[in-house]
Amino acid sequence: MAAVSETLVREVSEDALLARIVPLLPVGRATLLPSGDDAAVVAAPDARFVVTTDVLVEDRHFRRAWSTGRDVGRRAAVQNLADVAAMGAVPTALVVALGVPGELPVAWLEDLARGLADECGPLGVGVVGGDLSGGSELTVAVTALGDLEGRAPVTRSGARPGDVVAHAGVCGHSAAGLALLSADLETLDDELVAAYRHPTSPLAAGPSAARAGATAMIDVSDGLLRDAGRLATASAVVIDLDTDAFAADRHRLAAVADVLGADVAQWVLGGGEDHGLLATFPSSAAVPPPFVVVGRVLPAGPGAAAGVLVGGASSAVRPGWDHFAG
Amino acid sequence: MAAVSETLVREVSEDALLARIVPLLPVGRATLLPSGDDAAVVAAPDARFVVTTDVLVEDRHFRRAWSTGRDVGRRAAVQNLADVAAMGAVPTALVVALGVPGELPVAWLEDLARGLADECGPLGVGVVGGDLSGGSELTVAVTALGDLEGRAPVTRSGARPGDVVAHAGVCGHSAAGLALLSADLETLDDELVAAYRHPTSPLAAGPSAARAGATAMIDVSDGLLRDAGRLATASAVVIDLDTDAFAADRHRLAAVADVLGADVAQWVLGGGEDHGLLATFPSSAAVPPPFVVVGRVLPAGPGAAAGVLVGGASSAVRPGWDHFAG
Repeated sequence: MAAVSETLVREVSEDALLARIVPLLPVGRATLLPSGDDAAVVAAPDARFVVTTDVLVEDRHFRRAWSTGRDVGRRAAVQNLADVAAMGAVPTALVVALGVPGELPVAWLEDLARGLADECGPLGVGVVGGDLSGGSELTVAVTALGDLEGRAPVTRSGARPGDVVAHAGVCGHSAAGLALLSADLETLDDELVAAYRHPTSPLAAGPSAARAGATAMIDVSDGLLRDAGRLATASAVVIDLDTDAFAADRHRLAAVADVLGADVAQWVLGGGEDHGLLATFPSSAAVPPPFVVVGRVLPAGPGAAAGVLVGGASSAVRPGWDHFAG
Repeated sequence: MAAVSETLVREVSEDALLARIVPLLPVGRATLLPSGDDAAVVAAPDARFVVTTDVLVEDRHFRRAWSTGRDVGRRAAVQNLADVAAMGAVPTALVVALGVPGELPVAWLEDLARGLADECGPLGVGVVGGDLSGGSELTVAVTALGDLEGRAPVTRSGARPGDVVAHAGVCGHSAAGLALLSADLETLDDELVAAYRHPTSPLAAGPSAARAGATAMIDVSDGLLRDAGRLATASAVVIDLDTDAFAADRHRLAAVADVLGADVAQWVLGGGEDHGLLATFPSSAAVPPPFVVVGRVLPAGPGAAAGVLVGGASSAVRPGWDHFAG
């Protein structure tokens, strides 16, 4: 028999795999009945819950050569938790469905579970269910649940002309980290590579924005211009970003962009997977930290289609990526 | 440009795909905010919800040669709805994460959506969210949510010696249908082939069982012996099935088993994916239809390990399948 650390998924039964993984997962503060039955039971104190799902596929969203199981677990958790936060909700639970090649080391899956726990545990979020299937391709489908705490959900469609546009989190760091890995220069800036491998989302800013009266909000997962465009379209408004917004990100990324001959603006405005939050607030609202005002909402109308401008003009930056069209 | 019916997934953007699929999906009676935002909002009237997830992988759980997209959509819905029902809950919503090869026809995905709608729509269950990713393998990960309507969840662990064991639904029909397809004899019995392609689960029997005082319940997805064994182990009891139980199923399957030279008992006791419900009730309870008494709960103890017997003895039938060990 192979050493434990080298055991492959195909060498163990589903029950044995679950017995290795489940103890690594947090139960969660809202969990009334944890995993182990046909379904789990989770509290929804205000008689509603938010639900969202996202899937990561190997060699599309991550490479095993560039990310550990723990990185992938952290990223899978964060991108779903950020969607919950973007509604103004507090995450309560995750469930995870995995398609797993037989030649995957069991240790990689244990590591994935630890990554989920890294992000969920400190927040009191339970990983309350899962399913494991064989598959030729490694896929990680996460569904996240959350609690609105009695507040109305903050949708994408509530932005109004006159609102200010604010952003919490970073922009372009994940794209810069990916570019470093692609150029085999990951030692040049560990922090940016880490921002790609396991992005940090300002999750608490979601409920803060809701409490402060945010009129619309979206998780920035596919690039600032693309996601701001979605919010603008849903709200039928124009979002005009300040030309000098994201100065801190531009400054932070300048040296690496120099080395790689890359365009900082492309990373900041077009790069995906940073999982910051973009929100709009009435101009009278106190924009809560860590949100920073980055622009304003203008009316759409004849001659001004709903969409995004930068400093009043269309941006030359490619607006982010499409998971299919690439 | 190809005809609409022949368009492939790789020829359209994610947004265009969603625009084709989302209108086919039911909104649901518990849906407070439907899909289209970062997350949906679903009602949970008793301040709790049940949640479960299951993944189907092409060539492991279905073959495109044997099942249409609509069949796969129906099956993906039913197997998750059955897990909700097995807690005694009423399903309220699904979310679906898809990994989709670029060469898949868009029409197949639309068909999948119609299959989800076939099962969910009549029940008032919403398909409230989803995610689409490219992938080399077709995977369908569904998460189902449900409402306990104020009742305690019916777990696997509450069976007590003296309880009766009852089953609702069919046993072995899906396995027989799969055997017919494998033998290229699907015309021999359309009904059994349909039971494989899109099994029917007695979903309303789950809440009925809970109202009637069921002490334990499980969805029979991996074969009666295996799932009864899970319930027995969780409850630390022996489940003794009557030798003449499932007479209707045995009778129904006899002719096909004859033609194929198959063992009816193997299909009935070992076949998976029928999605019947197995429950235990106090002997004083009125077992609600369509449940039929199929055995009784005996104490486990020295010389009687928790597990399943048939007529007081171990069964020679293989207990069902393991998704990894095969």
